[in-house]
Amino acid sequence: MSRDPRIHPLFREQDGELAIAGRTVGEWIAAAGGRTPLFIYDRAIIAAKIADLRAALPTEVGIHYAMKANPMPQLVAWMAGQVDGLDVASAGELRVALAAGVDPAHISFAGPGKRDFELELAIGAGVTLNIESAREFARAAAIGDRLGKRVRAAVRVNPPFDLKASGMRMGGGAKPFGVDADKVPALLTEIAAEGADFRGFHVFAGSQNLSAEAIIEAQRKTLDLVADLSEYAEVPPPLVNLGGGFGLPYFPGDQSLDLAAVGQALGKALAARDPILAETRFVVELGRYLVGESGVYLTRAIDRKMSQDEVFIITDGGLHHQLAASGNFGTVIRRNYPLVNASRFGARDAENLNVVGCLCTPLDKLGDKVVLPATEVGDIIAVFMAGAYGLTASPTAFLSHDPPAEMLA
Amino acid sequence: MSRDPRIHPLFREQDGELAIAGRTVGEWIAAAGGRTPLFIYDRAIIAAKIADLRAALPTEVGIHYAMKANPMPQLVAWMAGQVDGLDVASAGELRVALAAGVDPAHISFAGPGKRDFELELAIGAGVTLNIESAREFARAAAIGDRLGKRVRAAVRVNPPFDLKASGMRMGGGAKPFGVDADKVPALLTEIAAEGADFRGFHVFAGSQNLSAEAIIEAQRKTLDLVADLSEYAEVPPPLVNLGGGFGLPYFPGDQSLDLAAVGQALGKALAARDPILAETRFVVELGRYLVGESGVYLTRAIDRKMSQDEVFIITDGGLHHQLAASGNFGTVIRRNYPLVNASRFGARDAENLNVVGCLCTPLDKLGDKVVLPATEVGDIIAVFMAGAYGLTASPTAFLSHDPPAEMLA
Repeated sequence: MSRDPRIHPLFREQDGELAIAGRTVGEWIAAAGGRTPLFIYDRAIIAAKIADLRAALPTEVGIHYAMKANPMPQLVAWMAGQVDGLDVASAGELRVALAAGVDPAHISFAGPGKRDFELELAIGAGVTLNIESAREFARAAAIGDRLGKRVRAAVRVNPPFDLKASGMRMGGGAKPFGVDADKVPALLTEIAAEGADFRGFHVFAGSQNLSAEAIIEAQRKTLDLVADLSEYAEVPPPLVNLGGGFGLPYFPGDQSLDLAAVGQALGKALAARDPILAETRFVVELGRYLVGESGVYLTRAIDRKMSQDEVFIITDGGLHHQLAASGNFGTVIRRNYPLVNASRFGARDAENLNVVGCLCTPLDKLGDKVVLPATEVGDIIAVFMAGAYGLTASPTAFLSHDPPAEMLA
Repeated sequence: MSRDPRIHPLFREQDGELAIAGRTVGEWIAAAGGRTPLFIYDRAIIAAKIADLRAALPTEVGIHYAMKANPMPQLVAWMAGQVDGLDVASAGELRVALAAGVDPAHISFAGPGKRDFELELAIGAGVTLNIESAREFARAAAIGDRLGKRVRAAVRVNPPFDLKASGMRMGGGAKPFGVDADKVPALLTEIAAEGADFRGFHVFAGSQNLSAEAIIEAQRKTLDLVADLSEYAEVPPPLVNLGGGFGLPYFPGDQSLDLAAVGQALGKALAARDPILAETRFVVELGRYLVGESGVYLTRAIDRKMSQDEVFIITDGGLHHQLAASGNFGTVIRRNYPLVNASRFGARDAENLNVVGCLCTPLDKLGDKVVLPATEVGDIIAVFMAGAYGLTASPTAFLSHDPPAEMLA
């Protein structure tokens, strides 16, 4: 059996089973009271990703965690000690961040549809708002006045370029996110006139990108853009959030992002930056890249049947917990996530199987024609790449099953 | 303004607003304590659908409600009095059905991955199990023995034909659902040998189909199939569940299903049925068809902005409540669900707009280049066709927003 390169090397074999942080899946499930399905997130893998980033990125570039990728409270609390700040996208995420004890000065709040109660919570706590429109800033300023609090405002810019070859493009056209670059000067004037605390810029050009070249180009353009826009600000930007876009290889044939190339190019671009940005701090905002590989979704085989000449392994999990792995979330062509028989992780591949969830819909596929060791009822099937946009990006109430358990390793 | 034919005629204009069951959306939202987003399901529309079905279908054909389409407990409790039985797909759905006071004799439980505790709950309550494999029957029989309860068992058959031109095909190939027709005789022998109470057959060939011709053909083939299989049963089948497949017109240009044609053909096919089915009762199993049109999803515009030359209306709703409407659930080509400005339902169309949700992802679109009356912040946007596979088929925890409210009109 050649090991799937998408499975992080810290996932190991032990006594024939898949082991996570030194315990076999059988031990983990016993620790969860026998409950499956079960998500486990391995902190050592996240720490390794962060260490690789710190080594590759210039020292003046910090790392923010985009909580939307995985808002599990225990994970966020631990993550707060590993990174330089958190980016939240709702009052719900902000509450988790604050409950984790994160310094509000290191939290920023982005999102095109912030509601008044969300602005109020954020301004009251002293969190930085990534302002998405002139109208949103006016609402924030009025709330700040009412609360007697100075609004901390960064400007989210809709850049006139996109992150090429990106899983999701978030710039380079008419977009609901941020303020078009040509409208930013007027907003900066407004921020100064209101006496708000200008915190800098946020530029997010795309996500899930495996091309170092594309990321390097977007970062270089971002630096040029924010230097130009800084001319219109009262003070130089204290912080520039360069966005994220660092992708993970989910599918066979995907090549890992060349992080060293990104870091070197960013170092050069920063060394050559416009003097107006001399005192500016920079961060990258990463969610999926930090946590995606750390997660494994464990589900138990509850039936094995033949239909015509195909074998189906039916599990107690499914798309209600792992929508993206089923291929039904923003995907055109379904491809399998890496998946193994975790109870027989050391065994030789022997069978061509279909692994499906327990839901009564043909959409509920986890592994379409995968090759696994001989697989029996009771075996644990592990789906990897389950650390980001797994549980919280899935329709957990679909067919009214109990929610899965989550554990932090 | 020509009215969108996908909007059910019972949704009316009142004082310039959209009205549901005689109350304007403003009144409904006030009744919900001002809370948006809000789902409202109009019972009068469901009752009209059921009345149309009763009029079109032969009198010997009953109607079952497939709870997975919308398991809201109040709706299920009301629905129990309108239909002839409920089909559940999990212990969670079964608990809601039992709590609604539904007679267990009129509940059947299908699903390829029933867990032991689910079988135990169902057998203990006296619910019919639609058996999906020989192995599942063996587990059920053992649980029945342990509980001292006779298992009520119907056989779910994986038919050797599919429902042509169907949104989802669930037959005609290797499938995880049911038992291949050629393996059914052996299972019927097993059911008789175990002394279980044989309840009949369940054949579900596909869903969301707008072609009367395709449904007629699948029903005719189903009758032939179950007549053939009945030869192997100890007693003729007391009930045959013919499945569903009755589709709704979601998109521009979709033609409504010709229900009269389906009913007439089914009447003829039943009149000519094999004598072995003479005493058999028949049901169709419908979820989406009964409730889909009854639901409306109300969300408030919280920002209006220009980006380049496009207008974006940003709402407090989104794909976390309405994944299918955003085009991200099992869809290849995104098309808009019917959507209106509910605060200005009587007004003339005036603008080309994009309506998006509040989430920080480009996937979160509700209306892509729609034409609406001049739309302002505070207006209520209504998305129709929200009664089935809306809230419970969406990733409600995505970005950690509060859940929407639900009301029954």
